[in-house]
Amino acid sequence: MKLITLAAVAAITFTTSAFGNESIIPVSQEIKDTTVNLRDKAIKDDSAYEILKSLTTEVGARHPGTPGEKAGIEWGVNKLKTLGFDKVYTEDVKMNGWLRGIETAEILLPSYQKMVITTLGRSKSTPKGGLEAEIVHFKSYADLEKATDGSLKGKIAFISKRMEKFKDGAGYGPAVIARSKGHELAAQKGAEALLIRSIGTDDHRNPHTGSTNVAMGYTAVPAIALSNPDADQLIRLIDYGHTPKIRLNVQTQDLGPIVTKNVIGEITGREFPDEVVVIGGHLDSWDLGTGAVDDGAGVAIAMATAALIKNNTKERPRRTIRVILWGAEELGLIGARAYAKARQEDGTIANHVIGSESDFGAGPIYGLQSSSNVSDNALHVIDTMASLMGTLGVSRRSGDTTGGPDMIPLSKLGVPALKLMQDGTDYFDLHHTPDDTFDKVNPEHMRQNVAAWTVFTYIAAEWPGSFK
Amino acid sequence: MKLITLAAVAAITFTTSAFGNESIIPVSQEIKDTTVNLRDKAIKDDSAYEILKSLTTEVGARHPGTPGEKAGIEWGVNKLKTLGFDKVYTEDVKMNGWLRGIETAEILLPSYQKMVITTLGRSKSTPKGGLEAEIVHFKSYADLEKATDGSLKGKIAFISKRMEKFKDGAGYGPAVIARSKGHELAAQKGAEALLIRSIGTDDHRNPHTGSTNVAMGYTAVPAIALSNPDADQLIRLIDYGHTPKIRLNVQTQDLGPIVTKNVIGEITGREFPDEVVVIGGHLDSWDLGTGAVDDGAGVAIAMATAALIKNNTKERPRRTIRVILWGAEELGLIGARAYAKARQEDGTIANHVIGSESDFGAGPIYGLQSSSNVSDNALHVIDTMASLMGTLGVSRRSGDTTGGPDMIPLSKLGVPALKLMQDGTDYFDLHHTPDDTFDKVNPEHMRQNVAAWTVFTYIAAEWPGSFK
Repeated sequence: MKLITLAAVAAITFTTSAFGNESIIPVSQEIKDTTVNLRDKAIKDDSAYEILKSLTTEVGARHPGTPGEKAGIEWGVNKLKTLGFDKVYTEDVKMNGWLRGIETAEILLPSYQKMVITTLGRSKSTPKGGLEAEIVHFKSYADLEKATDGSLKGKIAFISKRMEKFKDGAGYGPAVIARSKGHELAAQKGAEALLIRSIGTDDHRNPHTGSTNVAMGYTAVPAIALSNPDADQLIRLIDYGHTPKIRLNVQTQDLGPIVTKNVIGEITGREFPDEVVVIGGHLDSWDLGTGAVDDGAGVAIAMATAALIKNNTKERPRRTIRVILWGAEELGLIGARAYAKARQEDGTIANHVIGSESDFGAGPIYGLQSSSNVSDNALHVIDTMASLMGTLGVSRRSGDTTGGPDMIPLSKLGVPALKLMQDGTDYFDLHHTPDDTFDKVNPEHMRQNVAAWTVFTYIAAEWPGSFK
Repeated sequence: MKLITLAAVAAITFTTSAFGNESIIPVSQEIKDTTVNLRDKAIKDDSAYEILKSLTTEVGARHPGTPGEKAGIEWGVNKLKTLGFDKVYTEDVKMNGWLRGIETAEILLPSYQKMVITTLGRSKSTPKGGLEAEIVHFKSYADLEKATDGSLKGKIAFISKRMEKFKDGAGYGPAVIARSKGHELAAQKGAEALLIRSIGTDDHRNPHTGSTNVAMGYTAVPAIALSNPDADQLIRLIDYGHTPKIRLNVQTQDLGPIVTKNVIGEITGREFPDEVVVIGGHLDSWDLGTGAVDDGAGVAIAMATAALIKNNTKERPRRTIRVILWGAEELGLIGARAYAKARQEDGTIANHVIGSESDFGAGPIYGLQSSSNVSDNALHVIDTMASLMGTLGVSRRSGDTTGGPDMIPLSKLGVPALKLMQDGTDYFDLHHTPDDTFDKVNPEHMRQNVAAWTVFTYIAAEWPGSFK
């Protein structure tokens, strides 16, 4: 597609020889002027906030295999149509469903106390009525690794590592292994169940759910997260010299094969309709909250960005803006993997000019990062984007990026990616909890996000050069 | 007791004739010096924090009629003995018990969504499996009053008034009527159930329970509180033009007659052992959290204060310091009423020199208020107390006080009272929720509390004059 692109833009002024044989296509003043105009409209526009309000209020939680997910998909199609997208369609994605059921936990000894827990994704059930066992405390996944295989027979392995709080969410990686792989390790050590401190940075009795590394079927042993205050409580009891005996009762259901959907809306490019700039968020959410910061916000930001560009430009941008509302992200990027695989198989992956997903909450954007495969000749465009986001408090950042979780499969196939870095300091207070609700979102931050996304999306769709 | 007191202190210098016939007994320099010494020890002493940690961790929730309450009473007796109190005893109090059971709620229309609720004290059960009905929204108790009697047949009355946040908790009174009396009003209007926004100032999905105005038996209709984000959700749905249909399922149990206890520990007065200075907190808690700020903190502050005075004075103060850990406060000051009634009947009420309860969380103390029945001749003592609390950030305040909830019955019988006013700005974020746990308490604030309580308690027990 690169040759066609260059041929088609022959009429446009650009610099060439100064940088040798390669062509550096500037961002025209007209593009810059239009971008500034769009950005300044966006910063006063509450569309994303209103879209998020509707999704989280009229639909609520959107976990795969539930009526909420179905309602969310219908909502997505209808909202994209109402917003006047040129094309709106869905793509079926096969997956294996899993549902949470009863989940209760109690300390039995040294005194009877109720605990607040949540079942982790694809956890197997405990025996009916629950299992009762003493806990054995490990301060980290690494500490549990050191236990002798089979040594936890008749015990519950408790990993208490606390996630640390950083602006960029850097505490997630070191902590989340307990959630994703702890069940296998606990089983290997002989434990009856895995109990972890929630992977989250708050101190409320709202536990954080999340996926395990299981794609279908069940975890090796029941896998459960305690709210942070409950984890603290167990640690204090242990520090007092007690050996807490607890009862865990979780009943879950493997739904077997189900179908989810990616919901897609396009603003068709006026010159290169086959070339696509991908933006989006994931439409599914965990079942405990209403998926406001994870990831209703991303869905709303992407939809509002594309609609704002469409509504405030005389003609469509050169390239197609494709808003993808990915399905089943939470259970392992299932919609995103299917999307990328299909484009690899039909060859249209080559038409994916650049992409980014908004999936880190609703905090303000402070940085713009690009993937390492953006060509040197296109870096000035990214710099121009960052420069035009400067009034929003955004600056150019070094580093590499996949462009967000659902961009990972596309990124692996060579699609250039940007990351609009959000302040996620408080993101993991809410992430995967019952507390992930609309009231937590700041409308000013939503406007700032759309303004920054508008700068990226419009320039990516209008600038005629190639990012590769 | 007044004459005896005056006779016994004849050796102490005091002013008389300057103020006519009445005697003004100064606070001696020795008392002041000892007070400062005690205060400065207290501000470095973590005893209260450690006592609170033990209560909330090793016992947990302490709702009347549960194993937790029993464990709490045992803990109280043992802890007072361990702390070396001169006398430790309990007094039985008859009451009617009530227990929460299943509590679930869902929005059925316009889309299926789970809600987070809690049952209010002494609520009756819904029919087994729950009741399904549309909600009718009232912005306040006053608005529900305006509805025609019987007009809510087949509906659920929903009161959405939001409690406002103030340092002194002034938002509680205007909001709490929906909780205490809403059930009767809803029944009068013909509603099937009462649903209220939680009486609380946070935005977490932790609902606030609390008592109704029912002393035994059940409320007129099921009475339920929604977490604040869930209340917001219903309001947004209504604002969109929907009429939410919901299902409420709460199953509760009237335990009938049970026995709770007031737990009492004394530091026996060296001169006037029959004269008592009352300090304390309530030992019971709601069942959702572990009763840290309500009212483990008060229990711990009172116990630590008396122990600190005992451990850091050469001889016992003149009067007895009586630490009362009242029972069943949450269900209507039941232990406190029984305590006062018994003292009225046996005549020892006259020996109650002055009293105060700590029951407004674990925030720092900023003011000292006295009841209007403190004699003019004793006001200088209160001023001296406030002055000696000055380094702690406490100042003398005007107004009247009962000295805390469990002091109300004593106050009504004429016992002078002080209020050590705490900053309760965040108190109603946690009050009566699952989030009322130990991790919310700041050890520095606990030390400041004990320092201020030590000033009050020591002077009240040592100063030989009468507050009446």
